Amino acid sequence: MQFTANEICLLLNGTLEGNADVKVFQLAKIEEATEGALSFLANPKYEPFLYTTDASVVIVNNDLVLEKPVKPTLIRVDNAYSSFSVLLEKYNSLKLHKSGIEQPSFIDPSAKIGKNVYIGAFAYIGANAVIGDNTKIYPQCYIGDAVQIGAETTLYSGSKIYHDCVIGDRVIIHGSAVIGSDGFGFAPQADGSYHKISQIGNVIIEDDVEVGANTCIDRATMGSTIIRKGVKLDNLIQIAHNAEIGKNTVIASQTGVSGSSKIGESCIIGGQVGIVGHIVVAKGTQVQAKSGINKSIEEEGKKFGGAPATNYQNYMRSQVVIQRLPDIERKIQELQKALDELRANNA
Amino acid sequence: MQFTANEICLLLNGTLEGNADVKVFQLAKIEEATEGALSFLANPKYEPFLYTTDASVVIVNNDLVLEKPVKPTLIRVDNAYSSFSVLLEKYNSLKLHKSGIEQPSFIDPSAKIGKNVYIGAFAYIGANAVIGDNTKIYPQCYIGDAVQIGAETTLYSGSKIYHDCVIGDRVIIHGSAVIGSDGFGFAPQADGSYHKISQIGNVIIEDDVEVGANTCIDRATMGSTIIRKGVKLDNLIQIAHNAEIGKNTVIASQTGVSGSSKIGESCIIGGQVGIVGHIVVAKGTQVQAKSGINKSIEEEGKKFGGAPATNYQNYMRSQVVIQRLPDIERKIQELQKALDELRANNA
Amino acid sequence: MQFTANEICLLLNGTLEGNADVKVFQLAKIEEATEGALSFLANPKYEPFLYTTDASVVIVNNDLVLEKPVKPTLIRVDNAYSSFSVLLEKYNSLKLHKSGIEQPSFIDPSAKIGKNVYIGAFAYIGANAVIGDNTKIYPQCYIGDAVQIGAETTLYSGSKIYHDCVIGDRVIIHGSAVIGSDGFGFAPQADGSYHKISQIGNVIIEDDVEVGANTCIDRATMGSTIIRKGVKLDNLIQIAHNAEIGKNTVIASQTGVSGSSKIGESCIIGGQVGIVGHIVVAKGTQVQAKSGINKSIEEEGKKFGGAPATNYQNYMRSQVVIQRLPDIERKIQELQKALDELRANNA
Repeated sequence: MQFTANEICLLLNGTLEGNADVKVFQLAKIEEATEGALSFLANPKYEPFLYTTDASVVIVNNDLVLEKPVKPTLIRVDNAYSSFSVLLEKYNSLKLHKSGIEQPSFIDPSAKIGKNVYIGAFAYIGANAVIGDNTKIYPQCYIGDAVQIGAETTLYSGSKIYHDCVIGDRVIIHGSAVIGSDGFGFAPQADGSYHKISQIGNVIIEDDVEVGANTCIDRATMGSTIIRKGVKLDNLIQIAHNAEIGKNTVIASQTGVSGSSKIGESCIIGGQVGIVGHIVVAKGTQVQAKSGINKSIEEEGKKFGGAPATNYQNYMRSQVVIQRLPDIERKIQELQKALDELRANNA
Repeated sequence: MQFTANEICLLLNGTLEGNADVKVFQLAKIEEATEGALSFLANPKYEPFLYTTDASVVIVNNDLVLEKPVKPTLIRVDNAYSSFSVLLEKYNSLKLHKSGIEQPSFIDPSAKIGKNVYIGAFAYIGANAVIGDNTKIYPQCYIGDAVQIGAETTLYSGSKIYHDCVIGDRVIIHGSAVIGSDGFGFAPQADGSYHKISQIGNVIIEDDVEVGANTCIDRATMGSTIIRKGVKLDNLIQIAHNAEIGKNTVIASQTGVSGSSKIGESCIIGGQVGIVGHIVVAKGTQVQAKSGINKSIEEEGKKFGGAPATNYQNYMRSQVVIQRLPDIERKIQELQKALDELRANNA
Repeated sequence: MQFTANEICLLLNGTLEGNADVKVFQLAKIEEATEGALSFLANPKYEPFLYTTDASVVIVNNDLVLEKPVKPTLIRVDNAYSSFSVLLEKYNSLKLHKSGIEQPSFIDPSAKIGKNVYIGAFAYIGANAVIGDNTKIYPQCYIGDAVQIGAETTLYSGSKIYHDCVIGDRVIIHGSAVIGSDGFGFAPQADGSYHKISQIGNVIIEDDVEVGANTCIDRATMGSTIIRKGVKLDNLIQIAHNAEIGKNTVIASQTGVSGSSKIGESCIIGGQVGIVGHIVVAKGTQVQAKSGINKSIEEEGKKFGGAPATNYQNYMRSQVVIQRLPDIERKIQELQKALDELRANNA
């Protein structure tokens, strides 16, 4: 891909200063850009780089006042950061454009495939599966029997969707994520062994969800494990059977949500958090990384930390004291000694 | 799949009340069931739903006394919960019935394939591999050279079994699990680099084990990493080289067992637990989620919590006090002050 | 594979005692070895096994003085452990020898494939990808468009390398690892939803790196996530976008490194550790398993523990006191009581 400064300026509806014909073929941070790169300046902290960068074109805010002459062509816009984001998206959608059905792939004759889809080589589409328009199924994905996938969704290489699961529009699922594996349910037997409880439910992933690489979402025992619209799940997350993650909730890497727990809307949950089963977490809850939530959180919009988790302020205060514990213990011994002396004197 | 109330009643050897000809085509919880659903009532807490459910058929206990008339057909049995479980299994085994060899798949001519197996498209069976009767290898599985897999075992899509590993009968391995990857062993060199120690052992998984999605079990350096009969491993678990997990032990998601550790029989280990290397954990040990076991546990049947873990009761008591730490510190300052005043008065 | 004691002795440049013609066909620990096995004795603790083992050949140190006659053929060398390691490697490289291109595989016509490579069935090599000489791509691997892979590198079954990533020489990547998935970056919107920030950077993995099974390394937003030469990553690790892991650093299983953090050279980081984003960890830092690093570590070569982590000695001291907390609280109450009595007496 290669564009002139002028072409980019027209696309962003900006104002050009400098050589309109200079060509760019990559995007880069201003402090790392080399010749041929397009960059941007939004944060004033980075302004000094504007005078030293080798970038060929830099997008800047309309109100930027230059302190001295600059080498790159400038494109002035209302908001340099969001204009650059638009270019990033454009760049990526051109770069990742894929369509058509590569061979060999396996598409069961009963599957319904939408228009303009991409199905990579070695992808498997099971019986009665439905794939929406403009959806991309990368190589080596597995779409089990009767799976429904919406439109404009992307499944990256090696993601596995077990039978009967339902996935919405504009969903992104990353490599080797597993959707719909069996919930972890066993009935203890008299001889100490465990008998598997059949898991006949499914997973429903609503629109605009992103699921990270190697993340696992187990199917419900009966009914559905549900990931609501707009949820963003990072890599290596565990969502157990019959859990529900509320709309626009964001969960960082390596966190686990146990069976049947319901996480509210718009929560922000850090990495390596554990959430026990059969609880409710209120809307807008924020959880510090590495915390363990072991009971329901009823009040909305609060912040928690620790394992077991408590109110974040208490948690932080206790953490500080923990580091002083050896001093505290010494202090108590001194008090004891002083008190003993006092008593001896008083005797 | 579609059955009449009468067909199900015969299967369960029950007694029918109501319309014997009503048809059901799905299984559902009584509180969520719609017309055409078969449900069950075992827990008396859910009895009110019996009078409002839209389920077409409900399995109930023989001793249930109706308070008022009900709409669904009832099937009375000795134990509604276990009868329903039987149906769940029946349903799933019909639903997940697969057999035959899909194309394209890769089966080395030297591999021995049992009777009535399912080998999905894009599955790979290496040289001298052995696959038992009635075993299902879903699409995109990898069975390395000389792997032995027993009968009635299921490998879901994308599970990877490295060369020389041995897997028993009735084992279930979920999507993208990796069995037999190299143990993490390196010899530090004088120049600060690490030299890989070749890992020539294997993994042995005995009968009736379940391995969750994206779980990793590393091969032994020499000898075997062993998962004993009846062990149940959840998703995203790490079992390091030369570890051994005892019979009927259950481990929840995201837990890690380090190299050469031996976990006893019938242990119950929570999620996100870490267990250091080269230790022994006694039979029947229970470990609280998020704990860190940093030394051997010799006494059987005890409960542990915390990181580093201690006796569970102590752990819980300390956790309670931790949350009072800021108050405790304040208390000590008050004591100090009171003592100082007393000493001043006594002087 | 089958060798005589004499062949092995010549290979190791050792001295033979006993039957030079005895044949061995496997490697085993001295305490587990059976007839036909080759073993070694390095640690004097294991010397008693030398007189009872069924191994056919044992490699021993030159300076070993026998206490009584032994059954196996002995091969004397300078360092039995390293000679045995050499054999382990030899054994594994013969055993894992693979070459040629299995069918069906997918190789884009624009890809450049080196000499003597192995490309397993169902592997996918995208447009403009480059694969170096003697590299092994196991079945079901995904090599995205424009990926560059060096020489003598091994990608085990199911590893996924997204477009544009760069992988060095002698790298090992284990099953279902995902390299180059999107960084977890979203811009919060006024309506509570999140807008995805396009991730256009890549991942660079330098020479001699090992990446464990199911480990995830996200691509940079712009620029590169970098894994420096000689780094060893265990299974199920998360490396977020724009992170950098320094030369010869070793990280154990289930640890997570957040976005833009830079870990120095020669660090040793335990399992289940969490490291927050945008910090620096100094060269030679050691981190206890399960710790949480929440701020930069500037001083080199120190040891840390706890979550949040502190100096390891302080951490250990505080951990000990935590287990005495209930006693400490009781002690304070006794002090209070004693003080009150004293005051009452003094009144």
